[in-house]
This record gives sequence, structure tokens and C-alpha cells, in this order.
Amino acid sequence: MPVFHKYGYGAAMAEPGSSGAVLSLIRTREATTRNELADRLGIGRSTVVQRLAVLSDANLVIAAGDAQSSGGRPAGMFAFNESAGVVLVGDLGQTGCHLAVCDLGARPLAEHTAPLEIAQGPEIVLDWVKDRFAELLRDVGRGWQDVFGIGIGLPGPVDFETGRPVNPPAMPGWDAADVPQMFADVASCPVLVDNDARIMALGEHRAARRADRHMIFVKIGSGIGAGVIIDGEVLRGERGAAGDIGHFVVEPDSGAICRCGNIGCLDAVAGGWAIAQRMGGHAATPPDVVRLARDGDPEATAQVRNSGRLVGAAVANAVNLLNPTSVVIGGKLAEAHEQVFAAVREAVYSTCTPVASRYLNIVLTELGHMAGVIGAAHMVIDHVLDPDRVAALLNS
Amino acid sequence: MPVFHKYGYGAAMAEPGSSGAVLSLIRTREATTRNELADRLGIGRSTVVQRLAVLSDANLVIAAGDAQSSGGRPAGMFAFNESAGVVLVGDLGQTGCHLAVCDLGARPLAEHTAPLEIAQGPEIVLDWVKDRFAELLRDVGRGWQDVFGIGIGLPGPVDFETGRPVNPPAMPGWDAADVPQMFADVASCPVLVDNDARIMALGEHRAARRADRHMIFVKIGSGIGAGVIIDGEVLRGERGAAGDIGHFVVEPDSGAICRCGNIGCLDAVAGGWAIAQRMGGHAATPPDVVRLARDGDPEATAQVRNSGRLVGAAVANAVNLLNPTSVVIGGKLAEAHEQVFAAVREAVYSTCTPVASRYLNIVLTELGHMAGVIGAAHMVIDHVLDPDRVAALLNS
Repeated sequence: MPVFHKYGYGAAMAEPGSSGAVLSLIRTREATTRNELADRLGIGRSTVVQRLAVLSDANLVIAAGDAQSSGGRPAGMFAFNESAGVVLVGDLGQTGCHLAVCDLGARPLAEHTAPLEIAQGPEIVLDWVKDRFAELLRDVGRGWQDVFGIGIGLPGPVDFETGRPVNPPAMPGWDAADVPQMFADVASCPVLVDNDARIMALGEHRAARRADRHMIFVKIGSGIGAGVIIDGEVLRGERGAAGDIGHFVVEPDSGAICRCGNIGCLDAVAGGWAIAQRMGGHAATPPDVVRLARDGDPEATAQVRNSGRLVGAAVANAVNLLNPTSVVIGGKLAEAHEQVFAAVREAVYSTCTPVASRYLNIVLTELGHMAGVIGAAHMVIDHVLDPDRVAALLNS
Repeated sequence: MPVFHKYGYGAAMAEPGSSGAVLSLIRTREATTRNELADRLGIGRSTVVQRLAVLSDANLVIAAGDAQSSGGRPAGMFAFNESAGVVLVGDLGQTGCHLAVCDLGARPLAEHTAPLEIAQGPEIVLDWVKDRFAELLRDVGRGWQDVFGIGIGLPGPVDFETGRPVNPPAMPGWDAADVPQMFADVASCPVLVDNDARIMALGEHRAARRADRHMIFVKIGSGIGAGVIIDGEVLRGERGAAGDIGHFVVEPDSGAICRCGNIGCLDAVAGGWAIAQRMGGHAATPPDVVRLARDGDPEATAQVRNSGRLVGAAVANAVNLLNPTSVVIGGKLAEAHEQVFAAVREAVYSTCTPVASRYLNIVLTELGHMAGVIGAAHMVIDHVLDPDRVAALLNS
């Protein structure tokens, strides 16, 4: 069996009718019978049969009954075997994490949610994550040899090519840490790392808004970040820092000093940490703010509503710059109270130019707290099942 | 001879070794001999010879001497015939325009610059443009049958697919005008229309900064706009409104009412029109402001420097959101006085997060007032010589 958990691609480009191209059409259900595959790929039926045999041997494709037929012999249908392996994913925030083992259809099979201080540094945090991953694998009766890939989201800028954080202001000790290498003792599969708001954007896009050409996902939590989708793909930027809406200066006269060193950044005046600091007396941490807002505490409600207004002003600028199809609002603070979302909407619609806002959809996340792990799963699955990679690994 | 001035593509995708693919490699000089072309395209030498014959018949490819050879028969080289036709391009601003006839290498052969009030509406403006285009063709000894395409930049949001302006605040009478159709009486070639800052961004990228993956071009003139390049391509957005940095709210307490209806937009406090209004007494129009600033008038200098600071604050937000490789500053006000550029630089570097600004290049436009017409020429040439379109037109 081919080693799907091995890292890296072959250098060769896949031919148009490669096994990777066949698998891709079956995964997306664009073509599921021998004839459809031959037609779509412009290759002979005998080549299709060969490719399907290779993919079946690799356990990636299975027979899926017969297609409806208008007469004659029914056409056999093929389906992607989403149980061929699993991916392990983690959405790590500043103060909590959400881990999951997912099938190859990005569906979570088992999950683990717990408080986790990212500031403990990469060794302590990732050792803990690896232990939980091992438990999740046991929970679903799988082993490390079944893991096709690992995907991690972190609350700061990440250089996607290397998987290393780049000067993350809220993650002391993590700068340039070789996160993929730190999984080498347990797994030899690809390990992909990206910014948390970006994996949330990818999850929401792939699972709920795939038709949206350009999308901005805004995460309102302890910190504030955004993930930008351009032409259906995640925008990472030159150094992995794209989406840093948290450092839009929105209240330059506020005197609020941000962790980045500037004054009046969105993060410093509207994030969960900033609210917790301002409320000092009876709310010490962002989770406390979320709880109080959810319970209808008047001060917490006023604070999160003000946050929504400030976030909306920043998002309006982003909308004018990118003219997206949609803006999706997520994150713990936004999910805690509908007034946050209402305030963002109001600020965006009242500030944007008419041409940018008239056909704009502003919606609450559909995936909620699942957006991160589902996005991380899509990130890893798209990578390990890339047609060129599959063709090179299967040599077909 | 094939009708290169006819509009539209064939529906078919070009085969990997089509005449369009051959022309593309020759145009970019990636492959210029028969052997190089055969190697790059994975097709036989005899097919290459056929394709080259078709392209020569269409006058698109010419022999270009012999390649250096290490022995044996020297290899014949082929070059793109940049004189096979011309494109007509216009960069229309709010108060002036720049027209040119360019060869197929995007080089201007003749130009015309004149004041032009866009507010006269599309009929008057475009009739005038058509007359000037006819004169430019006569100047270079060409006729309408030589025109492969027409490219127009306009100072407002444009729906690129239809070539129609979309609610342009500074262009009364132009909303939804069918600009391509208005050229139908003189030419049957493709007519492409886009926002002026976007064609400037494209020109600067193609001619001076092709290696930059993500780029923001900021035009500081009568109005303020931006063109965004993502992965080497122009970002247009869902409704053609991408790049609208002029309506970033930068001074909400200023009381300055913007043409868009909001208060404190960048355009309303930092554009040439806004400065002209503030200076009222001895400067009535944006060109006057440019002239005074260029002559060192203290008040004008202070005003344009303040504009630079405000533009820089808005650009810093855009840089945090997109993490671009470079920011290019252009437009008449920026070119009038180096202090505008200095102020933008200072504001961006002092406000951006370190990760977004450390490797960021902030530069003045290299193309200057030529950026628009050269960008419009690239826009049209890339379209009419698209490999699939060439293959369909030549049926080869």
C-alpha cells in the first residue's frame, strides 16, 4: 500500500488523466462512473479501469452501487472512501483549544475541548496536544499509521510554507518555533500550520459558503483576527500575516496601548482581553466576559456591543478594499451575544460605499465553534489528496 | 488572415501544444527555438513546425536570427511580432485624460494628454475620445482594422465583465453606461473597461514589479483610490469595487462630508479636491494644488503633507489586512512633491505590525503618469492574446 502518511510530493506534474485526477472527480462527485470519468478526462475507458484498480488497491475508492439507468446494463458508481484514513486537527486559541480526529470527508469522529494557555510555550503545549491526539486515535480505534496528516491553527501570524509562527504578539516563546518538526517523534505525515482565523475562514467557506468568490471571516474572541478568501482560496500574504484586522487603528485617541506597541488598535480596545481588563472588578478573563454577556449582565452587554461597533468600523474598511461576496462573523464573543453581530452589521452597512455593501451578505458563522477544526481538516485533506501528490505517490 | 479584432473567444479549451500556447512561450521568451518549444510543450517537432507556420501566416511570429550554438547547425529563433497590430488605450481621470496607441508589447507609439471633465457624461467624453483615437491612428499610419483591442480606465467602480460603471460617485451620468457598446460604431474589437487605479496597478506590476506576489498601488490625485494585485492578478471584487481605499473613514470627527454621503472619508479630507476646497482663496482646482505644491507654496506643501499622513494611516490598515510584498504610491499629488511620499512611508512604517512591515517595500511609481495607459495596454493585450483565444481564432 502506498505511504499516504509520508511527507512531500513527487516533482512531476500529474497527467490530465492520472489517478490523482480520477480521485479528484470522484471526491467532488463531478464524475462517478467509468464513462463519466472517461468523458471528463478525455482518456480511454481502459485507462479509467486501470486508474480505478490502483485507487481501489490503495483503499481510496470503493464501489457505490449502480447509477440510475434508462435501459441496458446499469453503470457502476464509485465513491471516495472517506474512511481510508484520518486527520488530526487542533484549533489552538490564546486560552483554550479544540482538538479533533476527522475522517477524510472532514467530519469530526471524536473531539476534545479544554482550557489551554498558549503562553506556556510550544514544548509544553504541543506535548499536551500530542497526548490528546493519541487518546483521540484510541477513542476511534485508529493508530498513528492511519493518520494522513495533521493540521494546527495558532492565534498569530504563521509562515505557511514552513509552519513557523512569525513574531506572534500573543504567543510568547513561539516565534519561529518549528511546529511540524515537533510532531516528528509521533508521526511522519504532513503537518500543516496556519493562523486560527484563516482556518476558520477556510472551514466556513468549504462547508457553508463554497459559492462565495471572496469572503472575509472575522473572529471576535480574546483577540480579533480575520481570514480572507480570494477566488475561493485562503490569502496568506507575503509573510503569513494577511488578515491582521486586529491592528487596524480605530481609536487613536483612546490611550489604549496594544501588545503590538501601537495605540488604539482594534485588538486593544475591542477584544475579549481588552474588555476583561476594563471590567477588572468582576470579570478577570475573556471567558468571564463571554459568560457575563451570555447571562445578560448590563455592563458586559454594553461592552460587547461597543466591541461590535468598533469591529464593524474596521470591517467596513476591509469591505471597501476587497469588495467581498460575504462577511462571516464568528468567535466566542460574537457567539455569546446577538448584539455583537447586530452592531457589526449596523456599522458595516452604515459606513461602506453603496456599491460594496448593496449585494454584501453579512452573516453569523454557521459552523460556530467547529469552524476551526473543520477548516484545519479541509486544509490538510486538500493537501494530502492533491491530484499531483496522489499521482506521484501511486505512480499512476 | 484571422480576425484578431473580432470579439470573443471560442468555447474550447486550448490543447497544451496549441498555437496559442506556442505564441505565449515566444511572447514571454521562455522558449524561442523549435527544440525549446517542443521540449516545453511536450509535443513533436513536426507539430511545432505546423504551429509556427500558422502563427507566421497570421503575422504574429517572425524569424529572429540564429541562437548561439555550441556546434552543428545553429537553431533558428522566433520572436513575437509586436507590430502585428496596435491597441488603443485611455486613462480617464476626473479632470484630465491620457490617451495612447501602443504596439502589442505595450509600448506607446503616440500619445495625447488633455484636460477633460469626466462629468460631461459618457456621450460627450467618449465621442471626444474616439476622435482622438482616430487621430492617434493616423499619426502612426494605422487604421481601425489594425486595432486588436481598446482599453479604458475610469475614475470609479467598474463591473469588469460588462464594462459598465457601477454607481460611480465622481462620474455623474455614467452609472451603468455601456462603454464597450459606445465604441461599436468605430471598431469591432474587444473593449475592456476597468477602474483607473486598477489599470495603474496592473501597469506598474507588469512593467516594473512583476516579481512582487501581492501589491497595493495607491493613487493620490483629485480623488484617492487603490489597485490591489493578489498572486500577480488584479483583484476586482464581487461588484468591481475592490480597492476603494478613498472611503476608509480616517477622520470621523472632521465634519468633512464625502461625495459618498459619509463623514471623514479619506477622499473627503485628503484628496486633491478636498485640499482645493480648503485652500479656496488662491487654489481652485486640484491641478492648482499640484502646481502650488510643486512650486513650494508653504500652505500647499503643508496640505499635501497632511494628505500623505492620512493616506499612510489608511494604507497601514490595508497592509495589515493583505500583508503585501510592496506598496507603490502614484498619482499627480504624490508625484508633485516628495513630502507626500515621505509622509505616507512614515505613517505606514510607524503604524503597521512588524511582521507586515519588516519586508515591505514602499516605493514611488516608476511609470509615473504612464502607469495608466501602460496598464490598460497590458490588460487588453493579455486578453486578446490569451492562449485559448488565439488557439480558437486560428483553429490550431
